[in-house]
Amino acid sequence: MQLVQDRIERRVLTPGSRLPSVRAMAETTGYSKSTVVEAYDRLAADGAIRSRPGAGFYVSAPLSPLSLDRIGTPVEREVDPLWMLRQSLSHRPGALKPGCGWLPDDWLNSAHIRKALRAAARSKADAPLMGYASLLGSPPLRALLARRLEEQGTAAAPDQILLTESSTHALDLVSRFLLEPGDTVLVDDPCYFNFLALLRAHRAKVIGIPMTPNGPDMAAFAAALTEHRPRFYITNSACHNPTGATLSAATAHQLLKLADAHDLVIVEDDVFADFEYTPSPRLAAFDGLDRVIRIGSFSKSVTAAIRCGHIAARPDWIEALADLRVATSMSGNPLSAEILHAVLTDSGYRRQIEGIRTRLARAMARTTARLRDAGITPWIEPAAGLFIWARLPDGLDAAQLARDALAENIVLAPGNVFSTNGMWSNYLRFNVAMSDDDRVSGFLTRACRQPAPARNY
Amino acid sequence: MQLVQDRIERRVLTPGSRLPSVRAMAETTGYSKSTVVEAYDRLAADGAIRSRPGAGFYVSAPLSPLSLDRIGTPVEREVDPLWMLRQSLSHRPGALKPGCGWLPDDWLNSAHIRKALRAAARSKADAPLMGYASLLGSPPLRALLARRLEEQGTAAAPDQILLTESSTHALDLVSRFLLEPGDTVLVDDPCYFNFLALLRAHRAKVIGIPMTPNGPDMAAFAAALTEHRPRFYITNSACHNPTGATLSAATAHQLLKLADAHDLVIVEDDVFADFEYTPSPRLAAFDGLDRVIRIGSFSKSVTAAIRCGHIAARPDWIEALADLRVATSMSGNPLSAEILHAVLTDSGYRRQIEGIRTRLARAMARTTARLRDAGITPWIEPAAGLFIWARLPDGLDAAQLARDALAENIVLAPGNVFSTNGMWSNYLRFNVAMSDDDRVSGFLTRACRQPAPARNY
Repeated sequence: MQLVQDRIERRVLTPGSRLPSVRAMAETTGYSKSTVVEAYDRLAADGAIRSRPGAGFYVSAPLSPLSLDRIGTPVEREVDPLWMLRQSLSHRPGALKPGCGWLPDDWLNSAHIRKALRAAARSKADAPLMGYASLLGSPPLRALLARRLEEQGTAAAPDQILLTESSTHALDLVSRFLLEPGDTVLVDDPCYFNFLALLRAHRAKVIGIPMTPNGPDMAAFAAALTEHRPRFYITNSACHNPTGATLSAATAHQLLKLADAHDLVIVEDDVFADFEYTPSPRLAAFDGLDRVIRIGSFSKSVTAAIRCGHIAARPDWIEALADLRVATSMSGNPLSAEILHAVLTDSGYRRQIEGIRTRLARAMARTTARLRDAGITPWIEPAAGLFIWARLPDGLDAAQLARDALAENIVLAPGNVFSTNGMWSNYLRFNVAMSDDDRVSGFLTRACRQPAPARNY
Repeated sequence: MQLVQDRIERRVLTPGSRLPSVRAMAETTGYSKSTVVEAYDRLAADGAIRSRPGAGFYVSAPLSPLSLDRIGTPVEREVDPLWMLRQSLSHRPGALKPGCGWLPDDWLNSAHIRKALRAAARSKADAPLMGYASLLGSPPLRALLARRLEEQGTAAAPDQILLTESSTHALDLVSRFLLEPGDTVLVDDPCYFNFLALLRAHRAKVIGIPMTPNGPDMAAFAAALTEHRPRFYITNSACHNPTGATLSAATAHQLLKLADAHDLVIVEDDVFADFEYTPSPRLAAFDGLDRVIRIGSFSKSVTAAIRCGHIAARPDWIEALADLRVATSMSGNPLSAEILHAVLTDSGYRRQIEGIRTRLARAMARTTARLRDAGITPWIEPAAGLFIWARLPDGLDAAQLARDALAENIVLAPGNVFSTNGMWSNYLRFNVAMSDDDRVSGFLTRACRQPAPARNY
């Protein structure tokens, strides 16, 4: 292979030219014919050469020069939820991402995943490697998720669980199920920015309910129900994204009473469930999956690379959601389900999560101190989770700060992307697992200490 | 049709309510009974109403959004695209599935997947195991797909390729990108049933263009462009699902000329690309990805278990599609991309595909003979691929036959699920890799030989 590749690179073999026959190559090089066949086959599979049946192998043409014209410069984007998503997912060598919403890879344990991959490679049955998933997805994983939900106080049969690609995909299916274009949805203000991008894709009207440290403001919630007749409300009850707030039992009770009175569906995104020390109230548990739809995934606590989320809801709703799922993406990923099941049932997983909780608590304390030192004030001190929501010194604009940070290869999460109105434009969300860093502190300290008249923001 | 639709919209006819009998409707409106039958059939094909055998027509519940009426026990399902999808994906021990759309697991090679899993388990970097995918998905896989497309005559830069979960997911993103509810889409008649389920979920109006053995009927296509101003047309150019037709170069040329004149976008689903012996014309290659969007996956030729499809299109469209992708499902599955890349670059893959082609050709010949023996007549003899589209003896209804087959644990694919009108109700699609079986032949022979008066169908 190397020999042929070298000749192609040195233009000894030019695009379109014929390779020596297998026999000739074997004689020239001294390799066996089967070794040459194998090398040619792999080069062909790689696209470097092509076989023409009955006529031997030829060097492939390079990618069309046309392709160069097609790559335009990316447009200057607004600092909005999609900007945030793109910045978070962009590959930037050496970048720091205190604005992103997940743990650094080295906090999670690729050893569990590797072990699960080896087990899958050895599996007796071809099923998790070859076929389509069943309609609702892997029965063993759904049974496991049902048991975990029950441990958290929410009774759910395995047939009340539909596997999805992610919790975002779960919310997308729920939105397809519940929304017509123009319908209204309630969100927290601030809320996870992807809710806003997703609801925009569904052309929903979004109304933000101001957050308090105990959950959404109940007076505003009640008023919005009367005024806007929303189709559903979406929230994180524990480890709220971005504020770190925790829903109190009293607020949960009032919220469900209002939902009953107005026949409101509630979507509870519990993606950070495993990061809590002390379990806090869940709407799904209070309500018993009657009008609450619970979505979640293990992207934050196992890996984002295998994509496996879920929806728990009333059986008849799951039935309709499964129709939508099969119509719009055919089937789930049985290999992902297999790997996730193996990791979650591995004895190491619980210990790993306990380790992460402890590490997060320490990082939370240290990040809080660093922010205060830079003059940035946390909104609350969250009980658990990844996030601190914090206010910049007066006169600073978070979106401008995020643009400046990008120039230093630091991705920040400015408040305006989490909100439907302008009231959080001097806030930032910090991921404590990515913020306990001198380069981040250094940038923030410099940015916040500049004398006001010299600043652009 | 208009009359019934109006009544449904004005809630005079509510979901679940029975429509007037054909006779009563004919008497009330003054239309002939055959006109009423035609209108009811088209409304049923459209999904607006459903027929219950022996009990008349009923107003359907919508696929979405949530209709409170639909809540309750799962209804007896119509034999429609969703029925077909659910039957295909259902786990039925011992079932034969001549109606399904994929190869038996043992025709593909789990050894390649197992090898790729072991390699992933050993990978030095954590990247394919732990992180989110980049925005467009794995760069090496996109480069490989671009080279493969170029080999097939379609120049595409890697940045013109967006990885998706599947080709269904690809079409879903394209539909989100192009469609508003109520927009019109052209499909082939018959076409892959999931197109119909997906477009219904998007609340698109679907117009079927009669298929000929060389592609869609050009006169009907031209007329539909003028009359309906469709947003896009979706087709399979090679190994057409379900008919096995092959687009001719002349039809491709005329079709693209019409598309240019009417500024029509074309979506070419090339999921069966690797099963062709002799490459046939592709709209994407003729057009150069200007107004053609090419979607595909390796669910049929590698495995359905790892979920990895793709979209190739103009760079500005890919940019917009990537926004929709990230907003609605966050990120792709880097592990799936890694495994697919390993399999596609494995020297064994090309040989495996060649083996499958040969095996399919033999199964095609044998299935054709078996069908003819049972009195079932192929529409054409396809040049390649999985499918034979074949007509039952006169007087037999394919939907009823499919229900009867299910009682014997055989999943058939009746013609009506592939069509927006009733004209294919005596056709079935046979998967040749699943139909060369005595139990299948036995059932078909018995079903087709029953003396007409004794039949329920």
